[in-house]
Amino acid sequence: MSQKHLSRGSRLPPFPKGKLRLYSMRFCPYAQRVHLVLDAKRIPYEVVNVDLTEKPDWLYEKSPFGKVPAIELESGDTLYESLIICDFLDEKYPSRSLYSRDPLKKAKDKIMIDHFNKVIQSMLKVYYHTANSNLNEDQLEEFFQGLDLYERELVERGKSFFGGDRPGMLDYMIWPWCERSDMMKVLGGDQFLLPKDRFKRLMEWRNQMKEDDAVKESYLEPQVHAKYFQSRKAGYPDYDMLVGN
Amino acid sequence: MSQKHLSRGSRLPPFPKGKLRLYSMRFCPYAQRVHLVLDAKRIPYEVVNVDLTEKPDWLYEKSPFGKVPAIELESGDTLYESLIICDFLDEKYPSRSLYSRDPLKKAKDKIMIDHFNKVIQSMLKVYYHTANSNLNEDQLEEFFQGLDLYERELVERGKSFFGGDRPGMLDYMIWPWCERSDMMKVLGGDQFLLPKDRFKRLMEWRNQMKEDDAVKESYLEPQVHAKYFQSRKAGYPDYDMLVGN
Repeated sequence: MSQKHLSRGSRLPPFPKGKLRLYSMRFCPYAQRVHLVLDAKRIPYEVVNVDLTEKPDWLYEKSPFGKVPAIELESGDTLYESLIICDFLDEKYPSRSLYSRDPLKKAKDKIMIDHFNKVIQSMLKVYYHTANSNLNEDQLEEFFQGLDLYERELVERGKSFFGGDRPGMLDYMIWPWCERSDMMKVLGGDQFLLPKDRFKRLMEWRNQMKEDDAVKESYLEPQVHAKYFQSRKAGYPDYDMLVGN
Repeated sequence: MSQKHLSRGSRLPPFPKGKLRLYSMRFCPYAQRVHLVLDAKRIPYEVVNVDLTEKPDWLYEKSPFGKVPAIELESGDTLYESLIICDFLDEKYPSRSLYSRDPLKKAKDKIMIDHFNKVIQSMLKVYYHTANSNLNEDQLEEFFQGLDLYERELVERGKSFFGGDRPGMLDYMIWPWCERSDMMKVLGGDQFLLPKDRFKRLMEWRNQMKEDDAVKESYLEPQVHAKYFQSRKAGYPDYDMLVGN
């Protein structure tokens, strides 16, 4: 999944038989959501990585707004929007269902996934300020307050994962940002570690997630994420940083 | 559904047996989505209208951010976020399914629902400017361009409704804003009518939607919506405008 990102003027490879295709970008957390679901459900797929700065023309035929992630089926049908794609995959390939069968529990997980957008926003603010050595304590606290809800929920559910004994949709949908949360430490030093006492269960959860087979497929170390982040912040996102590694 | 909106200091009525409860506001388009689904599926429910300026304390027990719509079940469980509630209702009460059984068609409808957020945003800009007699032609065009997609889609599907011969989830999720689209004319005059030739199928669709039983339950005339809009714009939303009518 770390192959070269195709850019403007590139040719789209022929469609792979018996698979579906994921248009992705190696460091995009939204695209990673789809990787996680495909890997968790063991759905055969091919990855086409896309240069998001110099987008190939054919990308707009697959994803009307030129966004990744997008998937393409053998029928030629395409879908975009990470959550819609993931829900589609869960319904279309019911092998390992990632939601509870109980519609109420499923809806509650969707609320937790939706609410995580706020955590993402406050996390991004913290990253940008940390990288500028210019942290605002209130912003860090806002980010932590967003996470408090997930800590409480894990305690209440009393299981290893939000999904129970195995990760479910909620686990996978929030994971890409949790994988990146130690970027703060890399960018700003030890003072930016998540407070261990406040997020005890979330820390345990993160360690257990790292052992999950689907997570292992796409996992990158915080140092790697931080390096990509710095390149993007400088205006030259190094999409192909891992090519040939 | 047009009863008085309960405000700060009010007492919450006892929970109705054998029903679910919808916390709503008579003029909220997001809340109307949930009304439409409840009415289309003939699910018994009680409405509690809420004053969103002077919110009752108990609202936060039902909806953590004090937002409507929210629903409460007999079990005491609550849900918020209009789309999550509507999907939940569709799964929990499968009598009349509002989505296609085909996961791909369902996902495509969800993309159209998600994309409608952009139409809503450009529509709101047009309303505010129209009400200030200060219309920007580019904004009007942006709004129309958003609608073009829905016109094309209706033509392609070749049926009365997005859902086929009866309205489905996509029809109901975009309806509240389409019901309000003639507010432009009320606020700004005939020059703000939707161009008939450009939106021929959408106009026919709108007329057919008005004949739908679920739509009739909550339908209000554009003049009424415009009157509420003006009161809100002036800073004194007249929630109880229809009480006793």
